Amino acid sequence: YLNNSNFEEGDEYFDKNLALFEEEMDTRPKVSSLLNRMANYTNLTQGAKEHEEAENITEGKKKPTKTPQMGTFMGVYLPCLQNIFGVILFLRLTWVVGTAGVLQAFAIVLICCCCTMLTAISMSAIATNGVVPAGGSYFMISRALGPEFGGAVGLCFYLGTTFAAAMYILGAIEIFLVYIVPRAAIFRSDDALKESAAMLNNMRVYGTAFLVLMVLVVFIGVRYVNKFASLFLACVIVSILAIYAGAIKSSFAPPHFPVCMLGNRTLSSRHIDVCSKTKEINNMTVPSKLWGFFCNSSQFFNATCDEYFVHNNVTSLYSLRHIFYLQFLENLWSNYLPKGEIIEKPSAKSFDVLGSLNHEYVLVDITTSFTLLVGIFFPSVTGIMAGSNRSGDLKDAQKSIPIGTILAILTTSFVYLSNVILFGACIEGAVLRDKFGDAVKGNLVVGTLSWPSPWVIVIGSFFSTCGAGLQSLTGAPRLLQAIAKDNIIPFLRVFGHSKANGEPTWALLLTAAIAELGILIASLDLVAPILSMFFLMCYLFVNLACALQTLLRTPNWRPRFRYYHWALSFIGMSICLALMFISSWYYAIVAMVIAGMIYKYIEYQGAEKEWGDGIRGLSLSAARFALLRLEEGPPHTKNWRPQLLVLLKLDEDLHVKHPRLLTFASQLKAGKGLTIVGSVIVGNFLENYGEALAAEQTIKHLMEAEKVKGFCQLVVAAKLREGISHLIQSCGLGGMKHNTVVMGWPNGWRQSEDARAWKTFIGTVRVTTAAHLALLVAKNISFFPSNVEQFSEGNIDVWWIVHDGGMLMLLPFLLKQHKVWRKCSIRIFTVAQLEDNSIQMKKDLATFLYHLRIEAEVEVVEMHDSDISAYTYERTLMMEQRSQMLRHMRLSKTERDREPFLYCLDQSNVRRMHTAVKLNEVIVNKSHEAKLVLLNMPGPPRNPEGDENYMEFLEVLTEGLERVLLVRGGGSEVITIYS
Amino acid sequence: YLNNSNFEEGDEYFDKNLALFEEEMDTRPKVSSLLNRMANYTNLTQGAKEHEEAENITEGKKKPTKTPQMGTFMGVYLPCLQNIFGVILFLRLTWVVGTAGVLQAFAIVLICCCCTMLTAISMSAIATNGVVPAGGSYFMISRALGPEFGGAVGLCFYLGTTFAAAMYILGAIEIFLVYIVPRAAIFRSDDALKESAAMLNNMRVYGTAFLVLMVLVVFIGVRYVNKFASLFLACVIVSILAIYAGAIKSSFAPPHFPVCMLGNRTLSSRHIDVCSKTKEINNMTVPSKLWGFFCNSSQFFNATCDEYFVHNNVTSLYSLRHIFYLQFLENLWSNYLPKGEIIEKPSAKSFDVLGSLNHEYVLVDITTSFTLLVGIFFPSVTGIMAGSNRSGDLKDAQKSIPIGTILAILTTSFVYLSNVILFGACIEGAVLRDKFGDAVKGNLVVGTLSWPSPWVIVIGSFFSTCGAGLQSLTGAPRLLQAIAKDNIIPFLRVFGHSKANGEPTWALLLTAAIAELGILIASLDLVAPILSMFFLMCYLFVNLACALQTLLRTPNWRPRFRYYHWALSFIGMSICLALMFISSWYYAIVAMVIAGMIYKYIEYQGAEKEWGDGIRGLSLSAARFALLRLEEGPPHTKNWRPQLLVLLKLDEDLHVKHPRLLTFASQLKAGKGLTIVGSVIVGNFLENYGEALAAEQTIKHLMEAEKVKGFCQLVVAAKLREGISHLIQSCGLGGMKHNTVVMGWPNGWRQSEDARAWKTFIGTVRVTTAAHLALLVAKNISFFPSNVEQFSEGNIDVWWIVHDGGMLMLLPFLLKQHKVWRKCSIRIFTVAQLEDNSIQMKKDLATFLYHLRIEAEVEVVEMHDSDISAYTYERTLMMEQRSQMLRHMRLSKTERDREPFLYCLDQSNVRRMHTAVKLNEVIVNKSHEAKLVLLNMPGPPRNPEGDENYMEFLEVLTEGLERVLLVRGGGSEVITIYS
Repeated sequence: YLNNSNFEEGDEYFDKNLALFEEEMDTRPKVSSLLNRMANYTNLTQGAKEHEEAENITEGKKKPTKTPQMGTFMGVYLPCLQNIFGVILFLRLTWVVGTAGVLQAFAIVLICCCCTMLTAISMSAIATNGVVPAGGSYFMISRALGPEFGGAVGLCFYLGTTFAAAMYILGAIEIFLVYIVPRAAIFRSDDALKESAAMLNNMRVYGTAFLVLMVLVVFIGVRYVNKFASLFLACVIVSILAIYAGAIKSSFAPPHFPVCMLGNRTLSSRHIDVCSKTKEINNMTVPSKLWGFFCNSSQFFNATCDEYFVHNNVTSLYSLRHIFYLQFLENLWSNYLPKGEIIEKPSAKSFDVLGSLNHEYVLVDITTSFTLLVGIFFPSVTGIMAGSNRSGDLKDAQKSIPIGTILAILTTSFVYLSNVILFGACIEGAVLRDKFGDAVKGNLVVGTLSWPSPWVIVIGSFFSTCGAGLQSLTGAPRLLQAIAKDNIIPFLRVFGHSKANGEPTWALLLTAAIAELGILIASLDLVAPILSMFFLMCYLFVNLACALQTLLRTPNWRPRFRYYHWALSFIGMSICLALMFISSWYYAIVAMVIAGMIYKYIEYQGAEKEWGDGIRGLSLSAARFALLRLEEGPPHTKNWRPQLLVLLKLDEDLHVKHPRLLTFASQLKAGKGLTIVGSVIVGNFLENYGEALAAEQTIKHLMEAEKVKGFCQLVVAAKLREGISHLIQSCGLGGMKHNTVVMGWPNGWRQSEDARAWKTFIGTVRVTTAAHLALLVAKNISFFPSNVEQFSEGNIDVWWIVHDGGMLMLLPFLLKQHKVWRKCSIRIFTVAQLEDNSIQMKKDLATFLYHLRIEAEVEVVEMHDSDISAYTYERTLMMEQRSQMLRHMRLSKTERDREPFLYCLDQSNVRRMHTAVKLNEVIVNKSHEAKLVLLNMPGPPRNPEGDENYMEFLEVLTEGLERVLLVRGGGSEVITIYS
Repeated sequence: YLNNSNFEEGDEYFDKNLALFEEEMDTRPKVSSLLNRMANYTNLTQGAKEHEEAENITEGKKKPTKTPQMGTFMGVYLPCLQNIFGVILFLRLTWVVGTAGVLQAFAIVLICCCCTMLTAISMSAIATNGVVPAGGSYFMISRALGPEFGGAVGLCFYLGTTFAAAMYILGAIEIFLVYIVPRAAIFRSDDALKESAAMLNNMRVYGTAFLVLMVLVVFIGVRYVNKFASLFLACVIVSILAIYAGAIKSSFAPPHFPVCMLGNRTLSSRHIDVCSKTKEINNMTVPSKLWGFFCNSSQFFNATCDEYFVHNNVTSLYSLRHIFYLQFLENLWSNYLPKGEIIEKPSAKSFDVLGSLNHEYVLVDITTSFTLLVGIFFPSVTGIMAGSNRSGDLKDAQKSIPIGTILAILTTSFVYLSNVILFGACIEGAVLRDKFGDAVKGNLVVGTLSWPSPWVIVIGSFFSTCGAGLQSLTGAPRLLQAIAKDNIIPFLRVFGHSKANGEPTWALLLTAAIAELGILIASLDLVAPILSMFFLMCYLFVNLACALQTLLRTPNWRPRFRYYHWALSFIGMSICLALMFISSWYYAIVAMVIAGMIYKYIEYQGAEKEWGDGIRGLSLSAARFALLRLEEGPPHTKNWRPQLLVLLKLDEDLHVKHPRLLTFASQLKAGKGLTIVGSVIVGNFLENYGEALAAEQTIKHLMEAEKVKGFCQLVVAAKLREGISHLIQSCGLGGMKHNTVVMGWPNGWRQSEDARAWKTFIGTVRVTTAAHLALLVAKNISFFPSNVEQFSEGNIDVWWIVHDGGMLMLLPFLLKQHKVWRKCSIRIFTVAQLEDNSIQMKKDLATFLYHLRIEAEVEVVEMHDSDISAYTYERTLMMEQRSQMLRHMRLSKTERDREPFLYCLDQSNVRRMHTAVKLNEVIVNKSHEAKLVLLNMPGPPRNPEGDENYMEFLEVLTEGLERVLLVRGGGSEVITIYS
């Protein structure tokens, strides 16, 4: 808050024109001075200040940042474009189209593009909801969703980027080894089956070497990497243009890439000299190389040959067609094949015999399915966060991010979708399905279409892929560093350090190690689904964040970007989830488990960040929803559970007088259900607010110590009785109201000269009854066991005299759930009068308890003798004397003279005293050794005159017992024999 | 509650011995009289009574039920046994073992048995939690889980039973048409491919006829069905014994069922005369029938033959082996094949060529997989509810149900598991995989093993299957009737009616119609997964009910059956869920959607049943959990949302004085967030409890009318000020506390002679400030718009004079979310003093609002002139005169004389009045046409002397404005420019 020293110079004007507000100027500053200081966006609030500092630290630079100046096109559109286009377009899209058919390939691309488009919309909303921090998407999400989600999402994003680096490296190696310098392969095999294994080893060796090289480049010259970004982008664009140019050219003059077929089977071009069974050498017809492979003699025509070879002709096929040819229709449908199958052209004629040789054909190298292709294609649409990652460099981030990102997605989607159709229309199906271009002399399949030369695409894609790899290796360690510096995941702390030049060395090493894992997998087709998974997780959370915040309607959710809707985010989220499970349900589960573990770990570490989380509103909404659902009348008997309001007394130093009351409450709840601890401070709220807070803290600490989970409610009231009455009336909220009041017996009320002690007690009993609440009064509360004492034997004795809703049966059952009372047995006593058949009563009682499923010993005590003893008379007399004396003392002198002492005994008091004495006699007789005695509590007299006698009766009733719990039902049944 | 007239006769004894309790005997009866009346289990509580009545109605009999007398063995064990054993054991278990291999088949059976065992444990716990109603499992679940779940589960169970009827009928037809009278088939085809289609049509025709027959039997003679139950059970037991006997016999003398093989391919025995390529007729070797099928001439040996036929020999194989033979090892592994494949014996030698003919072999008729087999096998373990369905007939249901059910499951599990091993050990794999026994001359495969004859099993299984079908058709309509009579699903009401003889005719017809659907599917293998799904749903809910109730620790969850645990139920639930998704994820989703729709429908119909639901505790626990999570300090600025405490005034008739305050609150919340409506009744709680309840009802109705979702809190207090103070202190619970108090301006305080009106107001302002709450005071609240008025234009004007946490900016934004204010524009005014640069201020203000993402017009009003006008002096004078006069009136005569009128002006009052007048001038000037004016509310004076002047200043400040909202922040920032 602003200091009011600023305003002193303008005191005179100020005082007059804003005099009404002058008393609070220290906490409520004038707008003009606020605006003054806010103009350069500092210290608006403390939180904001911390926020800025955090940013400065994360950025690793203490000096003031330069004014950001990049526009939408350069700052967002192009980076997004460069990040989205990737190696999959060149290496796998033809194969996807061939395998899935144009229709399904179109669907795959469309779903993936929709997914990123919806995510981009959600991201735009999040990015434009307030000043965008410079840290990019991780900051956006962690600030919007809180540290737990933020950390999980950040790490998913990090892992995705790292595996993307591995994928780019593998892609680059694949281009290098298959299309540029096939001779460079270290491991070779002529056997078609072993060849793919050899290729994987080549990938591993070269990939590792490449990775080391790239890490060195990143380590030494990260600034050059960024400078070359536009070069890499140029490579991509040129390659894509070459495809379109090729498609146009092929519409009048398709380039000639012949494919050699045996029957309807595609032959690998590796071992073919001419595409025919025979060839002419010196006008002699001699067997071709092909003959040699299929027959047991390569020289003679009378050799025994493979049956399929015998029956079928060798033909040559154009791999490319005029764009208007029927090729498109042929490629329309899918052609999923299991691994090892021969790639065939279904429409070609052939004689259908099996044949025993197959390693001269082009074979399918992995078993494909729709779901697999989704996982392999998805990485081509990732990279949409590239724009928002540069938020710090943008002139107007809130405008540029949505427009640039969405435009980039539209552009790339158009390119992908049009390419699917172009490939389907121009390229022969058998060639499309040929992943490594074996049939077209080892050319890149998409290269055959390109104009002016296949090399444009081969070289272009190689450089762009290298560039993408370098950028991933640059970006991932920085992201890890940012997460580490947020300090939400303690074990990552070491990765937050950077070298003198600001390079996150340790983070780079970890990134390299993880990328190496990806490279060891060696197959692009296996790495792609992994990174798909992590990116999808990340996108899922972005959509979730947007949907949640929209639905929760947090007032601070006011994105400048207007074209979002929770339904769109929800659809995006569903697509992400569906894609995860479609592409690989076990990877999806693994990714989710990893994310969940990170979440739980961060939660466990208790990250309390100053940035707050946007989903805290969720718990509020959940609580509100649950509470609103609850408020539908009182619960059914079978759902009744004690919801306690524990009334604590505080002494002068605001300490709790009887902490055992809380202990007892915790034992009664066995840790479940609602407990509200209430207390009253006598005083004035304006003055005693601080005291109330202090007392609340004391009580909360005590609750923690006694393991009472619940709420604490302090009230400052002028009168204790009023305060208690208001607590009983107004504690709880909606359906979460207490139904039972727990309090201690006012010990020493007889000795106290102040009548308020017991008057407050009886007042509370009356209010409780009026509010239809149950009441538990613990007598000798300080003798009650603590939570560490555990009774190893003994009884809980219930004296069930009147039926009061069943509380007396339920309470000992609940107590026995707690370890302190677990080993006690329950005994239930009841009293038979002269007219009762006590044997039948005992039987009925046992049956009743059997049906209640409560294990208890039952006993019926006969109380036939109703003669009033001399002792009763004596006690009654003593009581009446005492109260009359007290009354007398309160009278004024004249009145005292008017009303002399009268020793006449009230019959009803005698009867009551008789009850108390007789009951006490049998109870003490049976239960003097019980660990706890539960007893019906008689109601307070209807006539307030008898209040003091009532206290006396209760004293007599419970005399000689160690621990007593007086129980009064709330007027409703709490236990039932029915299920 | 018991009427106390019962006790009058024993008055004398009673009075003396229980005199302490006599005043409340009407609500708290003596235990002895309670036990007396309870002995025959009636009227314990009202709920229980209704419960019993409901049962009587459901049972369809008003007369007293006979004393139930069945024991565990006859009442639970045998019915369970009969229901669990079913057609799948005989028709499909061999095939499951052959296809999945012994290991996987064992796993399938084990998982299914575990699933039912765990469900039985959960069910036992539910069944022994209280007196078991006579209606069986549906009653148990609906009473335990509430009408919504109960209805959904009941209907799932009904659909499952109905489809089970269809499955039994299909099974019976299959036995009849395939094994007993193959000639009875109506549709025939010699082509192997078309034959299965023809068979399906046979199933449809015969199945429908059978269904009609069975429905007639059920309709006419349901009592005979039950009488024959033991006959059907005997059939099952004899059949099973025959299998064991056969297994023992095969260990020394396996019966001879030869299987004819061509190479390693199994030949169908249909067209074979001898198992050889040739046969001897009159000592001549002539081609056998087989020759004719495979070659183009059936007479000559020089014919062109199928290549596979040429290369392979025809051999004959024993279908059964000694039990100790290595057969077991051969059958250990799985052998899943796609549809149309030829069943082979992998270990046999063969020359591997494709061959072009295949309709003479035994073919696979459906593509199998582990998951499919699970779905097909599962119906064999259903039926575990048969015991609990008879709870009404049991002597001691609580003991018999758990023991009988669990024993039955153990028995059946043992039979299934041992049979899996026996089949694997004794029967040739190729025969096991042969679903319809084509290779063993159309014998039932399991029949080949049985002793003394295959016919034992064929006949036994036929009758037991018919019996099971009849029982399903008997049980399902009764279940539907029970559900319909519960009246939780209104559109089912018609099925609750029964004919004179108690038969539920309509329900029977519906059941028949649904079963017909199953029969039209015609394939046992397709119907089985459907009913698996419904049963699994049902079991899932049983486990869920048990797990939830255990975890929620409802006090009334005290099952007599002790050996349950939430973890077991949870595992059971997981297995159910897993099995559902494993066996068919789309069926699972459909079943869940159906159950979900039923749930929502019942919820929507608002079934409020007297039986309550055991999972209401769930919302309580959820609310408690959410609340406990919330209580972690105040929210972050970006999560701040107004949580309102609306203080309403009530008039003498307990009507709300200013209902518009609620309307305004609802507009402010746009329906979201916490709203507590508080009000105080002056009086004594003991006397005014009824009034408080009445007022609460009034307020709740008003809240409903104004669409305010929230809570209502009434307090009866001796003093209004105390009551309001306590409300502000103690409303809400834990983290669900109000942070903003909304109240109306005390209109006419100047006219009122009672100073309490404005003193209460200022007191409330002070308490609000002390509690750090925000305050909104609406002036002229009755002019505020109702929810139906919608402003089509106009402004919400904010006068932002001091910065107060940002409430002034947030409130108009929130109001604009509501349709009433949507079309208003926000204008923000601030005041520039002489020393301020108003142009720069305006620019800064605009930037600030841009970053806040709030669209508003901004204006800086210059207030350079600080000369105090004559009018100000005049108003101040008037104010001071008035208050001095009032003070004077309150003085006693002597004091009045002592203190004469003094007209001296307090300078600070003049300054304050100047502020008020000047501000009012500019505000009225700019905002007199605004729909709403928001204004900083000055704080009350530190010195209480000035309270009345403070009221006057506020009046002057807001004079001449139609609707004013005075706003005071709570001391914390509520809006931030950061995301």
